[in-house]
This record gives sequence, structure tokens and C-alpha cells, in this order.
Amino acid sequence: MTTVEHPGTGVAEPRALRAPDLLALDRAAQDLLFREARTADTFTDEPVTDAQVAAIHDLIRYGPTAYNGQPLRVLLLRSPESRARLLPYLSSGNRAKTASAPLTAILAADVDFHQRLPELYPHRPQARDWLADRAARVEQARFNATLQIGYLIVGVRAAGLAAGPMAGFDATGVTGEFFPDGRHEAMLIMNVGRSGPDPSGDRLPRLSTPEVIRTL
Amino acid sequence: MTTVEHPGTGVAEPRALRAPDLLALDRAAQDLLFREARTADTFTDEPVTDAQVAAIHDLIRYGPTAYNGQPLRVLLLRSPESRARLLPYLSSGNRAKTASAPLTAILAADVDFHQRLPELYPHRPQARDWLADRAARVEQARFNATLQIGYLIVGVRAAGLAAGPMAGFDATGVTGEFFPDGRHEAMLIMNVGRSGPDPSGDRLPRLSTPEVIRTL
Repeated sequence: MTTVEHPGTGVAEPRALRAPDLLALDRAAQDLLFREARTADTFTDEPVTDAQVAAIHDLIRYGPTAYNGQPLRVLLLRSPESRARLLPYLSSGNRAKTASAPLTAILAADVDFHQRLPELYPHRPQARDWLADRAARVEQARFNATLQIGYLIVGVRAAGLAAGPMAGFDATGVTGEFFPDGRHEAMLIMNVGRSGPDPSGDRLPRLSTPEVIRTL
Repeated sequence: MTTVEHPGTGVAEPRALRAPDLLALDRAAQDLLFREARTADTFTDEPVTDAQVAAIHDLIRYGPTAYNGQPLRVLLLRSPESRARLLPYLSSGNRAKTASAPLTAILAADVDFHQRLPELYPHRPQARDWLADRAARVEQARFNATLQIGYLIVGVRAAGLAAGPMAGFDATGVTGEFFPDGRHEAMLIMNVGRSGPDPSGDRLPRLSTPEVIRTL
């Protein structure tokens, strides 16, 4: 069987597994969103405008969530003061790149997202009451906000920008510092901008389909 | 200011907020992945082939995860027997559509994903040891597998198919039934296929950008 080597990974796989032509999405879009897109550690000076952010959100807000609850909330840190408040909560390796990124966003889950359900899920307004228990609700909020973060990373790339998501931070500290209302939980910090000349070295290896997908 | 009404939502917003033309992704791809894509409750009889599944995975496996850990694992239920084993764990409203869907997948997190890190994150093989604590690792596995589920939903749509993700199931039961090895956690059940004639009624309303995004 013919095999191909994935760029930068050294992993050879049967050609049939790549099969980009089996997708309805055109190859340029596949490259933009997944195949060529890279997590960025460095960025150019080009600003990320509010109009770009709104365009990204206007796209990804159509991604599905349970009960159409849409718990993701985004806090953009545009002022130098707000950025400075964040830095102490980041792991040391994430500080310099965050200080210099064109835009930094705190991605959070609204733990009280259920209050909007009568409006967002109008055919079953009682869904709000199913989520009266806070512990169950927090789990739902986290899960669905994380799904939405997946959509958001795709959306940033859809705007021709690079995302730099960072899990290395003190989530409790960031939640307390930026969401004193007690109804949000910080999930991820993400830098956004036009990727700098040297992204993050070679593409890291990806698991093959047989390693990830089994059939019963 | 000119306003536009979002299809099916009755929500009017300033035209600038839609701004699909601000994105690098072409409008057809925006529609395919987000704007026109819908969660499906009914499907045609057309099968979903292993080649389609492999093509979807080959696309979305490039989505980023922390430490490049890629904890998502997928179990496809193709045999009638395996489908029958799942049904009792689903909420009653999810059973009929799952019994008749062309393909049903259990999406799970590999809680021991860290064992592959020396290979997947070769420049810092010690990352495996940072995740020696199971509780911290489970949280990482869940978070990153959920991000990957977000990519996967986009990937299913990239194949011209519809996803029907379902959170209404007994996760502990499904984990015990299908992953007796103790190293996986079922996260979501997802039907996949070509969307039937009547998707899920009108598009539900989405939160506006100012409701989701704030700036400091």
C-alpha cells in the first residue's frame, strides 16, 4: 500500500487515511483551519481589532451546546493594566509571550448560564430548573464552554489569525482576580494575533486513526 | 445603524457584527461548518464509511491539545449488538434516533494519555511525570478530549455530514459497559450521518457578541 509521510512528523501512513478529497470542505479551508494552522508563541505587531473579534464570535456562536446553553464568556485584556494583572497568575514560561501578544483573552464558563435558558431553549423553558443543582450545572458549564473553546480556536484560524491557548496558569487565582462575581470560572488563557516568523518549531506527531478510533 | 435579522432567530443586530467578509475562511466553508450546519435528530439511510471517518480524523487530529496529549478516543458502534448494548444507558428521548442513526460513536477520554507523551511531546519527555497524579491527569484528559470533541463536530460537518451529539446518557454506565479497562471515561455520545429532511426545527437563538465578550 502506498504510504505518505506527514509534514514534519516523520509518521508514514497509508495514503487512504489522509483522504482530504473525501471531505466537502475545500483543501484551502482544511489547511487554514487544521493542516497548516499552528499554535503561535510569537506574534507580529499587527493589532487584532474588535471587528475581527466580533466576526469570529459571529461565526462560532452557531456551534452546538447542550440545551443551547452557550456558557462560554470571553474577557479581552486590552489595557496594559489588565494585562499586568494577569501575568502573575501565569506559569513563568507563558509570561513574556502574553505580555507582548497583540491580544490576550480569558476564556471562562458562566456557571449560571441556566438563567438564560427560557430564552435560549424556549421550547423547554423548564430546562432552567433541571439545572438548579449547582454542582451538576458547573460540570455542564465547564464541558460546554470547553466545546465552545474548541470552536473558538477554529474561529480564530478562520480569521487568518493564530491562537496561542495556554493551560499553564492559576485558574483559581485568575477567577478571583477577574470574576469576583462568583458566577464564572476561568478555563483557559489564549493569546491571539498574526503568527510571528517562527511559530513553535516542527509540527508535533499526531496519533494515527487506528490508535484513536476502534470499531465494535 | 443598519441591522440584520439572523435567519430563524428573530434577533436583529448591527450589520457590522455579522461581518463574514472579515474572515479569511470563504463564505461557503463558513456556512458548511457553522452558519448553515445543524445538529441532526434524523438521518437518511446513507451509510457513513470507515474512509469518511478516517478522513475526518485525519483533518481534526491537527487541532491543538495541551502537551500535544490528544486524549480523545472514539469507539464506533457498527454492529447491531453493540448499538443494542448502548441504548439502555441513553435517556429515553435519545434512544430511537440512536437506534436508527447510520453511525453512533462513543467519545471518550483516555485517562492514561500521559503514557504516550515521551513520543508525542518529545522535546519534554518529562511531561509524563508531571502528570503522575491521577486526579490532575483526569481533569486534563477531560478538558483536552472535550476540546477535541469540538474539533470533531467541526470535522463531521467538514465531511458534509451532520453530527447529533447527546449529553443525555449514563456516563458511568457507558464507561463500565464499553471501557472495562478503567483507563477511559465516556464523555459524549454522537450520532453521525447525512441529515434527514427535518433537522431540529428552527435555529435556536444565539447570544450576541456584547453578551459574551467584554473588554478590560
